[in-house]
Amino acid sequence: MFEVYETKVRVTADNDAEADKVRASLREKKVFLINLMGSPGAGKTSTLVRTINALKDDYRIGVMEADMDSDVDARTIADLGVKVIQLHTGGSCHMDADMTARGLDRLSVDGLDVVFLENVGNLVCPAEFDVGAALKVMILSAPEGDDKPLKYPLMFKVSQCMLMNKIDTKDIFDFDPEKAVRRAEELNPDIVPFEVSAKTGEGFDEWTAWLKQQIEAWRNS
Amino acid sequence: MFEVYETKVRVTADNDAEADKVRASLREKKVFLINLMGSPGAGKTSTLVRTINALKDDYRIGVMEADMDSDVDARTIADLGVKVIQLHTGGSCHMDADMTARGLDRLSVDGLDVVFLENVGNLVCPAEFDVGAALKVMILSAPEGDDKPLKYPLMFKVSQCMLMNKIDTKDIFDFDPEKAVRRAEELNPDIVPFEVSAKTGEGFDEWTAWLKQQIEAWRNS
Repeated sequence: MFEVYETKVRVTADNDAEADKVRASLREKKVFLINLMGSPGAGKTSTLVRTINALKDDYRIGVMEADMDSDVDARTIADLGVKVIQLHTGGSCHMDADMTARGLDRLSVDGLDVVFLENVGNLVCPAEFDVGAALKVMILSAPEGDDKPLKYPLMFKVSQCMLMNKIDTKDIFDFDPEKAVRRAEELNPDIVPFEVSAKTGEGFDEWTAWLKQQIEAWRNS
Repeated sequence: MFEVYETKVRVTADNDAEADKVRASLREKKVFLINLMGSPGAGKTSTLVRTINALKDDYRIGVMEADMDSDVDARTIADLGVKVIQLHTGGSCHMDADMTARGLDRLSVDGLDVVFLENVGNLVCPAEFDVGAALKVMILSAPEGDDKPLKYPLMFKVSQCMLMNKIDTKDIFDFDPEKAVRRAEELNPDIVPFEVSAKTGEGFDEWTAWLKQQIEAWRNS
């Protein structure tokens, strides 16, 4: 089972300073925090399920599910047998560094190697708030369209990795991965793109191999 | 062509009071304002194109396209030959009543019958801000999943109408319209649902007939 913890937005003078504190604390504890972002319905939870299954033999994993007030995602993740906590943002459309710090305290990260934060479904606000993660991953699903980097540029600027999910439906939605990548790279030349489908499993070997490399490189740095 | 107008968020003491002022002013001018909301990629712009084509012989139409900083949607709408203005929210994830009032001034609504506001793609924040519209319509697209009312309840509570878009793909995404409607009605028993596809045109006769009824009822009240 999992716990429900109510986070409320506290106005912090400097979210970035708080984020740096979170990052330093996690570095000391050797806990790799991944901030997973994307629109409502982009497939964050199902992507997380497949990703955890690919990683859980190698790492001790914790998950923080941020949601405005439901528990449905935490229930799904709890079934995987990993440590999970549901964070209720009390209507807030994003997680900030302070909410993340309190969530990590409550989750209790001692003994964990990797923590996933599934952010609130939103392409706008979560991009603005550094939570102290070692890695920011965003999901763009094919049905949303390959023009989204034009319209939500900050999300593509701040993310290190773009998962193009539901790629098995790209033809139905005239989603052109090359266009999406070109538009994302204009904003962020270093963004690493993967074509995946959390439904069929396509692309997950490549994505999770890359993710493991990132975790190992960070642990050894 | 269309104009680009930079709106910035001004903190107003009372958004609701400002929204009431917008509503009263539009009532006096007999301009019916529709606040169209939905996730990024739910199909707001393509739904708007079809809806405008069904209405433009009967009404003089204006459109305000709210976006963080792109113009792509206003270009699409301008091709229809209706009056359109692009509002840049300067990074804000929603429109508020004050931004709407300034947008309406700039659009200049005299002589218009119906104005559509295409809100920023977001299921969270736009639900929290009354902009003074006569009608709130939200789009839930099939690929997003029929569980979204559970996770973004406020959007479903505040909207008078729910368009279930991309319904031609419901089987691919295991989207059950009955489940979506039941979950939305638990939050808002009066919500009026339509199954539509902006791609195929399915359901648009029903939706636009209902919309015309709403406009006529309002004009005659």
